[in-house]
Parts: sequence; structure tokens; C-alpha cells
Amino acid sequence: MRVLGIDPGLRIAGYGCIDLEGNSISPTIVEAGAIRLETDKPISFRLKQLYDDLNEIISELAPEVLAVEKIFTHKDHLATAPIMGHARGVILLAGEQANLPLIELTPAEIKKSVTGNGRSTKEQVQHAITGILKLLEPPEPSDVADALAIAITAGIRET
Amino acid sequence: MRVLGIDPGLRIAGYGCIDLEGNSISPTIVEAGAIRLETDKPISFRLKQLYDDLNEIISELAPEVLAVEKIFTHKDHLATAPIMGHARGVILLAGEQANLPLIELTPAEIKKSVTGNGRSTKEQVQHAITGILKLLEPPEPSDVADALAIAITAGIRET
Repeated sequence: MRVLGIDPGLRIAGYGCIDLEGNSISPTIVEAGAIRLETDKPISFRLKQLYDDLNEIISELAPEVLAVEKIFTHKDHLATAPIMGHARGVILLAGEQANLPLIELTPAEIKKSVTGNGRSTKEQVQHAITGILKLLEPPEPSDVADALAIAITAGIRET
Repeated sequence: MRVLGIDPGLRIAGYGCIDLEGNSISPTIVEAGAIRLETDKPISFRLKQLYDDLNEIISELAPEVLAVEKIFTHKDHLATAPIMGHARGVILLAGEQANLPLIELTPAEIKKSVTGNGRSTKEQVQHAITGILKLLEPPEPSDVADALAIAITAGIRET
């Protein structure tokens, strides 16, 4: 099964695509990277950029499933929650248009599945992903590691 | 100038399109209505419905400007803010793809411009819109009146 994980954002959006064969618990990396949006441009412009880039990624990598974090809003992030919602809305739209089943995971579920600890740090997630996917270096920026962690967790849950 | 106002939502999204000629302060209604989304369907499905319906509305009515409320998050609406953000993200995307300039207005600005009072109720907005547009009945549901109020306020500000 090929899974595309997305870590939404309107500055940087991370994406990570993995393959997980049959009953294997060893995912292999297909491609991962960061969509960097032009932060001096209005949000509507960046949403279109994100949408266009994501459509290109979906059509090139042909994933079978799309995975994202569940929405959660914290009272300390009142201003960023709706902005994040904008990016997430466009991502869900692109997935729906490509007929991709959507898997939603909590941050704790994702962290626990890759590091064994639901409260691990970004650095610990980067470190764990490097080991799981046998990479030479930790994925940078951390958004890319997060996207790969989402894809791996979804893949393991679904296979 | 032809303005399309949208009141975003993933249950009901109101839209209202008005014309405002030259220096006139008397807008005329082009069309208004409610996009009703299937609330028993997942959010990704509804986002696509909203996007498709909105694209159809834009292509039929050919507005020159898109107007929406500014984002605001209130601590009492933590759960709805990101959901609203999803709908708004898809709306801004559709506007950007149609090359429509975007006008963002605060709720207080919109209410003040149509009722004279920045803290007026939904019923007062419906009543005011009925008078301004010389309608036979108040627009229902209130989302439609809100969308028309957004369009009228943006039109007056821009002409």
C-alpha cells in the first residue's frame, strides 16, 4: 500500500510518501519533501500554490491513501487554528478529487507509533523516522519527518 | 461592480450576488441562495461539494470581486474555528483560481454598514437587507442575508 502523509501549513507543508508491502512492518520511502509557500503573498495565493503542488505530487506519486493529523485546537493557538484549517481544507479537497480514502490520526497516535512515546519531541520523531526508513540523515525541516510519521502510522494501521 | 459575498459553512453556505453601479448607493440583487451540504457525509466530501457549487456560481454570475468575513476565532468556538477554516480555505481557492480580488470585512463592519449598528442581531440584518434590496420577504435562512450583507458592504466600500 502506498500512503501519502501531509503535514499542513501555509508557510511550509511537509509531505511524505511511503510503501508498505503485505504484512511487512518495514515501510520504504518513495519520496518526501517540503512545499514552501511564498509568505509575502496573501493566503488565497498560497492556498492555490499548495493545491497545485499537492495535485502534482498526487498525480506523480499515485498514492492509494491520504493521511493527515486530526484537527485539534488549543486555546494557546487561537489565531493559527483557522489558518491551519484553510490549508487542511484545500488538502482534503485535493484528496477527495483524486478519490483517495482519508485516514485521520491524532498527534499522540502518530508519535507513539514511530517513537513508542505519545509525547515525544520533534527531534525524537526526526530521529525515529531516520532509523525506520534507514535514511542517511534526519529529514529536514521537521515538517517532512512529521509527514513521513503520519504516512507510516497510517500505513501500519491499514495493512 | 458585481460583488459575490459568501458566508462560509459546512452545513449551509450562504451566497449573495449584487450589482452596484457607478456612484450609486442602491445595490440591486443578482442572485442569492444557500448551498446545502450533506451533513451525513464526511467533511472532505462536503468540501468538494462546496467547491463544485461555488465554481458553478462564479462561472454563471461572473462576479468581479469576492467578499468574505475576516477570520475571527473566539474561545467559545474552539471546535468550529478550524472547520470554518476548511470551508473558507476552499472558497478562497475558488476565488483565486477565478482571479477574483478578495475583500475581507469584519462582522462589525458588515453589520454597521447595513443596519447602522455593529452589534445588530441576525434578524436585524435580515430586515435591513430586505429593505435595501427591496425584497418581498426577508432572505432565508439567515446565512443568505449575511452573504448579501457582505456583498453590499464590500460593494459600497469599493465603488
